[in-house]
Formats: sequence, structure tokens, C-alpha cells
Amino acid sequence: MIQTILSQAVEAARPAAELGQTATYIPELGKMDKHHLGACVFTREGERCCAGDTDVRFSIQSISKVISLAAALELCGYDTVFERVGMEPSGEAFNAMGKLEAVGSTPSNPMINAGAIAVDSYLEPKISFEEMLSFTRKLCMDPQIVLDEKVYHSEMSHISRNRAIAYLLENTGVIRSDVERTLDFYVRMCSLSITAESLAGLGLVLAGDGVHPATGERLLSPDTVRVVKTIMLTCGMYDGSGTFAVQVGIPSKSGVGGGILSVVDGRMGIGIFGPALDGKGNSVAGIQVLRTLSRELHLHIFDPSEHR
Amino acid sequence: MIQTILSQAVEAARPAAELGQTATYIPELGKMDKHHLGACVFTREGERCCAGDTDVRFSIQSISKVISLAAALELCGYDTVFERVGMEPSGEAFNAMGKLEAVGSTPSNPMINAGAIAVDSYLEPKISFEEMLSFTRKLCMDPQIVLDEKVYHSEMSHISRNRAIAYLLENTGVIRSDVERTLDFYVRMCSLSITAESLAGLGLVLAGDGVHPATGERLLSPDTVRVVKTIMLTCGMYDGSGTFAVQVGIPSKSGVGGGILSVVDGRMGIGIFGPALDGKGNSVAGIQVLRTLSRELHLHIFDPSEHR
Amino acid sequence: MIQTILSQAVEAARPAAELGQTATYIPELGKMDKHHLGACVFTREGERCCAGDTDVRFSIQSISKVISLAAALELCGYDTVFERVGMEPSGEAFNAMGKLEAVGSTPSNPMINAGAIAVDSYLEPKISFEEMLSFTRKLCMDPQIVLDEKVYHSEMSHISRNRAIAYLLENTGVIRSDVERTLDFYVRMCSLSITAESLAGLGLVLAGDGVHPATGERLLSPDTVRVVKTIMLTCGMYDGSGTFAVQVGIPSKSGVGGGILSVVDGRMGIGIFGPALDGKGNSVAGIQVLRTLSRELHLHIFDPSEHR
Amino acid sequence: MIQTILSQAVEAARPAAELGQTATYIPELGKMDKHHLGACVFTREGERCCAGDTDVRFSIQSISKVISLAAALELCGYDTVFERVGMEPSGEAFNAMGKLEAVGSTPSNPMINAGAIAVDSYLEPKISFEEMLSFTRKLCMDPQIVLDEKVYHSEMSHISRNRAIAYLLENTGVIRSDVERTLDFYVRMCSLSITAESLAGLGLVLAGDGVHPATGERLLSPDTVRVVKTIMLTCGMYDGSGTFAVQVGIPSKSGVGGGILSVVDGRMGIGIFGPALDGKGNSVAGIQVLRTLSRELHLHIFDPSEHR
Repeated sequence: MIQTILSQAVEAARPAAELGQTATYIPELGKMDKHHLGACVFTREGERCCAGDTDVRFSIQSISKVISLAAALELCGYDTVFERVGMEPSGEAFNAMGKLEAVGSTPSNPMINAGAIAVDSYLEPKISFEEMLSFTRKLCMDPQIVLDEKVYHSEMSHISRNRAIAYLLENTGVIRSDVERTLDFYVRMCSLSITAESLAGLGLVLAGDGVHPATGERLLSPDTVRVVKTIMLTCGMYDGSGTFAVQVGIPSKSGVGGGILSVVDGRMGIGIFGPALDGKGNSVAGIQVLRTLSRELHLHIFDPSEHR
Repeated sequence: MIQTILSQAVEAARPAAELGQTATYIPELGKMDKHHLGACVFTREGERCCAGDTDVRFSIQSISKVISLAAALELCGYDTVFERVGMEPSGEAFNAMGKLEAVGSTPSNPMINAGAIAVDSYLEPKISFEEMLSFTRKLCMDPQIVLDEKVYHSEMSHISRNRAIAYLLENTGVIRSDVERTLDFYVRMCSLSITAESLAGLGLVLAGDGVHPATGERLLSPDTVRVVKTIMLTCGMYDGSGTFAVQVGIPSKSGVGGGILSVVDGRMGIGIFGPALDGKGNSVAGIQVLRTLSRELHLHIFDPSEHR
Repeated sequence: MIQTILSQAVEAARPAAELGQTATYIPELGKMDKHHLGACVFTREGERCCAGDTDVRFSIQSISKVISLAAALELCGYDTVFERVGMEPSGEAFNAMGKLEAVGSTPSNPMINAGAIAVDSYLEPKISFEEMLSFTRKLCMDPQIVLDEKVYHSEMSHISRNRAIAYLLENTGVIRSDVERTLDFYVRMCSLSITAESLAGLGLVLAGDGVHPATGERLLSPDTVRVVKTIMLTCGMYDGSGTFAVQVGIPSKSGVGGGILSVVDGRMGIGIFGPALDGKGNSVAGIQVLRTLSRELHLHIFDPSEHR
Repeated sequence: MIQTILSQAVEAARPAAELGQTATYIPELGKMDKHHLGACVFTREGERCCAGDTDVRFSIQSISKVISLAAALELCGYDTVFERVGMEPSGEAFNAMGKLEAVGSTPSNPMINAGAIAVDSYLEPKISFEEMLSFTRKLCMDPQIVLDEKVYHSEMSHISRNRAIAYLLENTGVIRSDVERTLDFYVRMCSLSITAESLAGLGLVLAGDGVHPATGERLLSPDTVRVVKTIMLTCGMYDGSGTFAVQVGIPSKSGVGGGILSVVDGRMGIGIFGPALDGKGNSVAGIQVLRTLSRELHLHIFDPSEHR
């Protein structure tokens, strides 16, 4: 039944890609075919449903912020991470910088660039990128994940804005380790090459509070997962997070590579790939797929069917 | 068991009131005794637990925004309400006005003053204040709720900021009905006199998706309740909403009268009264009570115990 | 020689009107013919040169801020006026409101709406509108100036934004007298009907430090005139004031009715009428006339020819 | 007579230093003795009056922005300089960064850090620092000016904020040459070691429209000097520029090293050194000296005595 609904949802959403555009701020991302659309659902019962372009590799981009946050909570601890990074939705566009200055010295949350760069500055001294890559493969249940060298180099040659953010964070004392090393780590994490299936795998681990469903191995602590899911819910869809919470109601994180990671708590992980973005930086067709799934499968956190 | 945990939580939180202050922007609110603290839990199974000052009447203030939003969704419809009011957390202080101008013409969400005044402007032509009072009594399962004339007059004589907001909304086309009538309606709704028990009653109706637990009467549609709960979760605790979502994880709405309305979806309604406020306008001791209850009773929306 | 240069400057600037638009935020102003262009120069030696549509009556709009400021300095004193209004250029658009909130409680300067409304609130209790009208006629050496009832009513029915500003100022304690009376006074002053000749007359009085050139009567104190001219120079052309100072270098004040009042200190008053406005709210063709006059007649405050 | 007034003004202003603090954002600047106070007046008639600590060397800091702007206007041309830098007062604090983002991509003016760094990015490819040093010595009529290595290194090790600004400018396309070279050039110019006499010398050249008074050599074109003086007047005293224009009315530029450069057009150059700063970053006692000189010597641009 999930497979049928999923396939129909993907087909119904395909035309929506026409309304969006691939990301343009990094040339390499602009080369994607905006008509790609794929969606996977992995349930805790072991069901695996896929529809559309679910094995096409694309750039993880901002979805890596979820992995970095989780790793930082594990390795550095909640208090260190949130000493100088907030947990409040910013209400700002995905590329905003001004607010950092306006409110003083603290990035609003770890899902915006400023917050993620700060989190990476705490994480980078404790773990190498290679270790993060291994950890990501495990979390996503996908050993094929690699660094996309072209995206990495494209992004490093368009790094001015993030470099500006990072030095501003150094100036305000939020970053206290090496800025250039932090930026390199941040860009590497953004340049991982994944599929919609990788995201469904990651979502499934988060839906199960951090335990690998196949091996039973605990990859993340329950507290880490609770924090991550809450922040995904309030801040995960850029400045469309509030509307998405009302209309879809599934903790999610999107990236300008076209991916969306969604976690139906206790039930399933969902991975989406649809590189045509709306004005807020979210996959147009992907959001439509998730709206359908939420409605048809009663996935909204406050769906009334749960209580009856 | 709930009663024991509740009583202990209230007693443990009492000293926290020293850290806060009663609201000062309306003289009448400043007269409250900041040492009051009370909390009620009404469960869907019919259990009613109370601890502390749960029958002291106080001013509902911003919590009325939840009732107005619910009523507007029922009477005017989702599309009308959200045509010119957003659903995004504003990341702004509870008395902020600047952002309205910054982002153009649309209030961020119905939980900030600008958004609530806009919602009231759609609602006021459709329903009289007396009818709203009756509706509120029903929702709160409290026939004693009345307009506090002193608070109403105190607030009307300190209305400059809200009047400025309202005329700005008229200027940007968000408000199209009579501004002064809207303001009067808004202030009357803010001046309702309630108890912690009233809030627990209201919370219980929302926890049950809009059905009165005793009579079985449907007071609100499931869709209305879903929207209201989601917006409470993302925007209900002023600019502390994100942190509260991570740490407590219960859809809630606070008011500067010291109240907090909390909804544990499918399970219970919680009402709090503690007029000592923190810098964000939320009850200091009230938040502490809710943190304890969330932890001890596993009430967080993403509490892992739910899945095992 | 001035007459020749003036006539040529006006003719050369006429086509520039095509680049602008008449003001649209008040319907009555939108009805003006945007092809009007007129300019007058009155020198301290008694020369009176006019070119173009210099006897067409139009709405003084923001240029009245200069008269209100001068009157307030005379009647209330420098300290009262600047206790809660600043003297800093705001760098904001002519209809901006956000910054008032951002910087706290003080309007940046008396040339923006917020500052002018504040100044009028100090002035209004001390002088009636009828007395202000008489005073304006004297300053402008034009007994024909009247209130344009149509503009006044048009503006009063589109007052939301200024009403919002005024109540915000009441909220922050900048305005302490009756808000509605202040607004009425403010709008009446904006609705005076003048000509380019009126402005040249006013400019001549200011160029002469406050003395009527014909009668020798002192209308304003030298200190008042010095303050007014300086604020015109730094804040008089909305958020184009800095560029205008560099390129033209003559203390000036524009209005969205199409007028520009200019004061060549110690030498002449200039009045312009050209209702086609640029994006900043300044007369497009008017600025071009002033650039030509400044260059040809060496009117820039820092023109080198003065020193040789 | 100037000497007497100057000496009295300096002595009267000495106690004001108690109200200020030396700059703290660079450790090396914080080491200055805040009780220093000196002032020089060099007139076009050849008079040279000095009072107080006029031969103490101190850091030029932001006053170098005037020299860089003048050099850029000469070497790159007005159009290049102002293609991507504005001429509007920003109304922002001297260390503000947020507004750059708010208004898009263009620094408000060349007197704020963002604008000066942009100007230096146009200048640096055309002239070496050593040539700028020679040019500065000529303009200031002071062959002793050197780079203060301690200040240079102190500033380079606290460069995060300016580096952030520079990369943001690269991101928005305002800077198109090498960012790190630009920053080094900018910091070197800020680290020049001067005296109050150097500033009086520079002011005298500007007062004479760019001609060296002793040699008659033209160092700057009249157009360059006109632009520079106007921007000093509207933007030279950080976010106190408007008030200073009203109260003192002399084109000036201050630096956090405690210096003030003032130009009385056609008459004299004034140099001030008083390292105790007010909250806006301007010399407290220095401003007081200038207020006295302006009043006693009738130096205000709109001083009425000029016309009689």
C-alpha cells in the first residue's frame, strides 16, 4: 500500500518541477537535470519502497548539517554545542547573513550556515573528515557515499560568503579554532554525494532513536536524536519551516542539491531527490510528494488518526 | 502517580519565581503577586490533578490568541486567515514591531501581536465579543470566565503600540475592517480572567482534536486543531519557542499574565499559572514545571519511550 | 546672466521628466501633470529670475517640515526639539518606518515623517494652524498660500502609515500631546498650496539668515536658520541627500508634490517645481536643473572659485 | 588672536577627556594615555598655531580613509570609485556591518570600513603602499610619517571583522581584486603614525583645494577635494556626523586613534589629537575644542557672520 501511494505521489508531483529551478549559486549544482524526481520510504518494519530516480547521486548540501549536528552532540556534548549557537528559527532566507550581526554574536540555530559553520568548528578538532565520511556511510546505510570532488572545488571557489560568515563568527568569539580548516571541513561535508535511498536510510535511523534497524547497533544516543528531530521540525526547511510544519508536519531537512530528509518518528525514514527548488531553496516537487504522503499515510505529528 | 509528580514539580519550581518579574507594561498586571504558582493536568482518561494556586484568576493575555485563531479558522476558513498572515516563527521578541515593516506587509504568524490583531480583524465582523466569551467558556470548560474590566481599561489606556501595529496593518492592506473595533475586540479577548484549570480544560479539548471530553461535543474541527497545535509548537513561547520545543517538546502558548497552555497530543491538557516572567515574557517557574513533567512523564513529542 | 542660465537649464531638463512619475501614494497628487517644470532664483541683490511653470500651485508636502522645524526652534527652543528627535541622516527611504523601532525610541531627524510628526507635536500646542499659515505666507513672501482642501482630505483618508508612526511615537514617549491633533496639524501643513516662487522666497529668507530682504524684518533667528540649513544639507533629499550634497552641494528640501527648496547661503533662494519624481521621491528634472545651476553659477558649498 | 583662542580652547577641554576611553578593540591603541590633548591651526595666510600635545605621534586609523579616497579619485576616477560604493551617510555605528547586507551589495559610503576597504581594493592595484606613504607625507607636509609596526601587527591579529567585511564584499562583487592584499594595504594605511600637526597640514591642503600652500604644487584636483570635503561633512564623524555638522559645521574626519582632521574651506586646516573617545568613536575633548573654535572664530559653514 505504501508503494502504491508513493508511486502515485511521485508521478503526480513530477510536473511541479517546472515551477522550480536548480540551484545557481554554485555552477556545478546548476548542471543538474531539474526533472529528476525520486522518493524512498524505509519503514521500521523493514519495508523498502522506492519510486522514481532514487539511485541518482546528488549533492547532500545542507542536509549534512543534520549529520554534523548529531556528531557534534555526541562528541562535544549538548552544552558545548549550544553555548554559542541558538535553537531558534531565524525566519531568514537560507543565504541570510545580516541577522547574525543584528542579534549580536550568536547564530540562531545549527541549520543555517552560520550555525552549521560554528558547529563544525567545534567538531573538526575532534574528528577527521575521513572519519565523518565513514560515520555518514553508516548512518545512511550507504557505503557508496563519496566526496564529489567537482562540487567540492566549485564550492571552494565560491566560498566568499561563507568565509565572511566564518570570520565574523571568529570576531564575535563563536569560532575559536582555525577558520580555514573549519571552512574546508564544512564544504567537504556539503559536497558528499548521496541518493534518495541514503536519506531514507538516515531517516530510518533517526526514526528509531539512533539504532541501526538491521544490526541493532546504537549509532546515536536518544537525546541526540530528540534534539536533532526537534530542530529539523522548527528550522529544517529554511524560512518555509513553519508552513511546512503546519502542512506536512514531519521533521525534515532540505538541501539546495534537491534532497529532503524526513523522519516519521517511530515509524519510517523518507528520502527525496528533486533538484528543482522553490524560492526558499526547497525541492518544489519534493514538498508536494511529502504533502501527499503526510495526508494519505497520516504522518503529521498531530494527525488526529493517531489517537482514535 | 501524575498527582505526585505534579505536586513535586510545582514545589521544586517555586523558588524560580524569584528570578522573574511580573509584567510591567500594563500597570494592572504588575500588581500580581509573583510568588503564585499553580499547575493542572487533565487527562483524556478523566484524571484531574492540581497543585498550587490553580483557582486564582489571572489575565489570559496572549493565550487568547490560540482561541481567536481557532475561532477564525472555523468561521473564516484557513485560506482567509493565512492569505495575509504567515506561519513562520519570527525569532523576534514578544513586543517587536520592526520586522513587520522589514519583510513587507505580512505578519509572521498569528501568535505575535501583529498577526493576532490581523486574525481578530477577520473574526470580529463575524462574531460578537459576547459570543466569543461563551465559546471560550465552553472550550475551557469554565463557565466562570469573565472580562476583567480593570485589565481591559488598563490595557486600553496603554494601547499606543498595538494601535500603531494595527494602523500599519491597515496601511499594508492586511486589515480591511474597522481598526478601532478590531483593537477593542483584541483587548477584550486579552482581558479574559481565567485560572490554570481553565487552561487545562482548553488543553484537553485540543489534545482530543476538538471534542469536549465530557459531552463528546465537537467544538473544533480536527484540521483547525492540527493547525493550532503546530503553530503553538513553533511559535507559542515568543522568541524562546525553539528552545522550549527542544527542551520540553509540548505545544504550548504563554501569556504575560503568567499563564501557559500546554497540549500533550492525544493524552492531556496542562494549565500553568506563574506570573513571574523571564526576559522573553514566559513564566519562569512555569517552564520549569513543564520541563519536569515532560521528562518524568515522557511528554516530549519525540520522546523515545513512545516507540518501544 | 542668471536668467539665461536658468532658462537654458530648465529647457535642458524638461525631457528628464519622462524618467519619473508623479507621487501615487495619495490619489490627489497623482493627478498632477508630470511635464510641469519651473524654477525661480531670487538673489539677495534683488534680482528675480523665473523660467517655466513657476506660478502653478502645487502641494508643499515634505518641504513644510522645514517651516515646522524653524517655527518649533523659535517657539519651543533647540533643547526641547532635539531632546527626543535626532539630527542624523537616516539612510532610509522617504517612507521608511522600521528604523524608528530598530534604534529605539528616537526619530533620526526632523526631515523624515517620524521626526516631523514629533516636531509638530511640540509645536501644535503653541500655535494654531491659522497662525502657521500666516507665518508661512510671510516666510515665503506669498500671501496667496492656502490650504488645498482636496489634498488635505485625500491625505487624511490615507493616513494609516503616519497614524501608525504617531502612535508608535506616543508609545515610546516621543509624543506626549494629543496624537490626533498632531496628525491633523501635520497633514494641514503638508497640504499647503504653493508655487516655485514661494519656495524661492522662503529660500531667500534662509539665505539671509532669517531677515526678510524687502522689509528688513527678522523672521527667524540666525541660530534657527543655521540649524535648519545644516539639516537640509545632510537630510533634505531623502536617502539621496549624500549624493546630492556631493553633486549639487546646496542645502535643499524636496517634497513629493514635486517641489524643491534650495538655499545658497548668503546669496540666493531657489524654488523648483517638477512633479515627476525619481525612486527616492525627489523631482527628477528639478535635480537636473540644480546640478546645472550649481556648476554654472558656482553654488556648491565647497566650490573652489570662492577662494580665489 | 587664533593662538589665544586655541590655547584657551585646549585648556578648557582637557577635563572632558575623563568622560572618554581610549580605543580597546586593538590592544596597541588601548595603551595610549587618554589625557593627551593637542590642537593645531594652519591658516592659508601662513599662520601656524599649536596648543598642547601637538607633536605626539599617534595612529591615523580612519582618517587614512580620506587620503585613500582622494588618491583613488585621482588614480581610478570618480566613476570607478562610486560605481559600487555609495555617498550616503549610513546612520550606523563605526563598527557596523549588518547594513551592508541589508541594503544589498553596496557600502553606504567610503568613510565606513566596508566602503574604505572597497576603495582600497580599487587603489591597491594602481599604487604601492610605499608610494602611498610618500604621497601622505606630502599631503600632510610631514616627512616623518612612518608605519607603526606595532599597531600594524596588533591590527592584523585582530582583523576578523574587517576580513569578514572584505569577503562579503567579494561575494557581492564590490571587490574584484585580491582580498588579502587589499586588507594588508588597508591596515597599513590605518597604521600610519602622525601628529596633530600632520593633520593640520593635510587640512590646509584641502582648504586650498589641493594646492600645497608653501610650494604652490597642485597635489589634488579641485574636483577631488570638493568630493572629499562634502563626504567628510556628511559622513566623517561616524554616526555623530549629523549632530557635528549642526553644532560645529566643519568638514572633519575622526579616527579611533584620537585624531580629528578638520577643513575650514578656503581658510584653514585644523588637526586634533585627543585619544579619549566618546561612545561613537570620536575624540571627546577634540569635539569640544572644535565647538569652541567654530563659535569663536565663526568657522561653521553656515555661520551668518560671513554674509554681513
